[in-house]
Amino acid sequence: MTSKTSARKVRYAVVGAGNIAQVAVLPAFANAGENSELVALVSGDPIKREALPARYASIEALGDYDEFEAVLARARVDAVFIATPNTHHREFTERAARAGVHVLCEKPMAPTVSDCEAMIAACLEHRVKLMIAYRLHFEAANLQAIEALKSGKIGDPRVFSSLFSQQVRPGDIRTRPELAGGAILDLGVYPINAARYLFREEPIEVLAAVSRSGDARFDGVDETTTAILRFASGRVAQLTVSLGASSTGYYRVIGTEGDLHAEPIYDYEQALKFVVTTEGKPREHRFPARDQFAPELLEFSRCVLERREPEPSGEEGLADIRVVEAILQSARTGQAVQLPPWSRRHRPDLEQEVGKPPVAPPEPIGAPSPTIR
Amino acid sequence: MTSKTSARKVRYAVVGAGNIAQVAVLPAFANAGENSELVALVSGDPIKREALPARYASIEALGDYDEFEAVLARARVDAVFIATPNTHHREFTERAARAGVHVLCEKPMAPTVSDCEAMIAACLEHRVKLMIAYRLHFEAANLQAIEALKSGKIGDPRVFSSLFSQQVRPGDIRTRPELAGGAILDLGVYPINAARYLFREEPIEVLAAVSRSGDARFDGVDETTTAILRFASGRVAQLTVSLGASSTGYYRVIGTEGDLHAEPIYDYEQALKFVVTTEGKPREHRFPARDQFAPELLEFSRCVLERREPEPSGEEGLADIRVVEAILQSARTGQAVQLPPWSRRHRPDLEQEVGKPPVAPPEPIGAPSPTIR
Repeated sequence: MTSKTSARKVRYAVVGAGNIAQVAVLPAFANAGENSELVALVSGDPIKREALPARYASIEALGDYDEFEAVLARARVDAVFIATPNTHHREFTERAARAGVHVLCEKPMAPTVSDCEAMIAACLEHRVKLMIAYRLHFEAANLQAIEALKSGKIGDPRVFSSLFSQQVRPGDIRTRPELAGGAILDLGVYPINAARYLFREEPIEVLAAVSRSGDARFDGVDETTTAILRFASGRVAQLTVSLGASSTGYYRVIGTEGDLHAEPIYDYEQALKFVVTTEGKPREHRFPARDQFAPELLEFSRCVLERREPEPSGEEGLADIRVVEAILQSARTGQAVQLPPWSRRHRPDLEQEVGKPPVAPPEPIGAPSPTIR
Repeated sequence: MTSKTSARKVRYAVVGAGNIAQVAVLPAFANAGENSELVALVSGDPIKREALPARYASIEALGDYDEFEAVLARARVDAVFIATPNTHHREFTERAARAGVHVLCEKPMAPTVSDCEAMIAACLEHRVKLMIAYRLHFEAANLQAIEALKSGKIGDPRVFSSLFSQQVRPGDIRTRPELAGGAILDLGVYPINAARYLFREEPIEVLAAVSRSGDARFDGVDETTTAILRFASGRVAQLTVSLGASSTGYYRVIGTEGDLHAEPIYDYEQALKFVVTTEGKPREHRFPARDQFAPELLEFSRCVLERREPEPSGEEGLADIRVVEAILQSARTGQAVQLPPWSRRHRPDLEQEVGKPPVAPPEPIGAPSPTIR
């Protein structure tokens, strides 16, 4: 490892070649060339393994999931970007760690708190870095929204409200319980994470409900989940996420002296926007579409090369999943669920902003968009 | 009663001369002259009793709360408009009913379900009409929003989300527990009522939490309340109301094929607006400010004169208060509260729209605006 990580560029294997890998992760290497290189691809689909290397000439090794360790060795891989279904995050994190390979893992970190804890432990044990791919921690609109709140423009923020919804394609992995699909894991981590980075505080209690329209698309997963998160300061967040409703993605923060309405704010394909209203006067802030994936690669590679601890860390991923678990428990039992005290030293802020031009997403192969509307 | 109600104009006493009575109810008689006449005023404040008749020459009788029955008799009053603090709604409804006088009562109908049931029973027993003053049931923006949902433009509505907040003046009746102040009674009935008239369905389960900033303004009342309302169809509503946050008032409805964002939508002083977005294309609908109080007087007077049952009825008021009670119970216990089956035959629709020009609110006497920001 020592010789490898002292090289100027971190050599990556991308694990999983679904829609997000094809339209966002693989193209992002073009914007991350200063310290990151795509050298391997692991996919369970022989058609993708056949077709994708033609688009990325730097790929030296290919294999299916069983050949993971062999691919890592063959291409002298330093780090993996895990973009598999949620249920495989833990497995590939542990296998990478055992191989001495650093792990950049898509969010949600894993379906359960115990999975997250095992992932953190494995990376600690094998002394590899672990980062969770919260792209919005490097994104200008969200970081400027954080800054607007920190500046006191809207007074003390009291209430957070968010909706995040899409109409998911029938049969998409998000509809499959055996792959840990469902709205709260897929979409819920965005507003949970946003409430946490905007309030800069961890929730202490959760109440939640799961709603179902009866649409057979969602058998076995949560179609629509609504949650109330309470914070020790008396702040409160309400959020609803749905895989069975038209596309929306916004948050609203009401302060003692004004409010901030960010919409769209979770997206990676379009320009983002927020409006700060004080004394009845709205002021709009617009942010052009950018590549939100290259910044993750750039920062993770810097951490690997400079032997720094990455943020968003495994603890940051776990901080959301413990809320997700509490939400599902509350929805099951109909009771408020207390969260044990928890604090995070690091909070995302404007210093983390990285501006990279948007990529032109290639036509995905055997990996249609999850969203139909 | 027979001879009085067969007259062309219904003779009203306004009970309570706080801010809403002075800036909205009393001026509205100018727009309701075709069937409604202001003939009496009941107020506990001698300064108001002294000053207000100069503005309203039609007032024939005045008195304080103890003289209520005498004032009704002296001015041959047909109907009262009750605009007292919430704790007095039941008392004046029962006293009016016993006097054979019809009751138009401000919302929230009363602090508890048993109060509401007693009010309905008193009006039935004494054969007087009872209407609850839901001004938005006659208001164009809200009725057109209902129409937009009924038309199927956004598909099947699945999720309702609302914030309604203001910074209340210290010492205002809304901050006083002995007058049944607090956010959920004062502001909460708007989003609860809106979720019900937009979904055209009654909630079956409630989860809720009360949040406090520690501001001494709110000792003994709920400063900020958040609730999840579940409906049998699988629809869900999330709402937060606060007396300790900057002014906002919106609702958002996400359907299977589009969404509707109405803001501002609860206000009676400014123009209202909603935006319907389908296939990513927003279409804006604007509604100029109008008098929202005269339509209540006009409709109630018609019901009195034509011996029809008014809507919004006592049952409509009770339908919200049973949700309020469940919300406060859930917030107290940390448990989901089931609501017994309940249905309403009548739902507000566009046929109820009444367009009257806005009034120029006079400077209130001894009754400052409840809102400081």
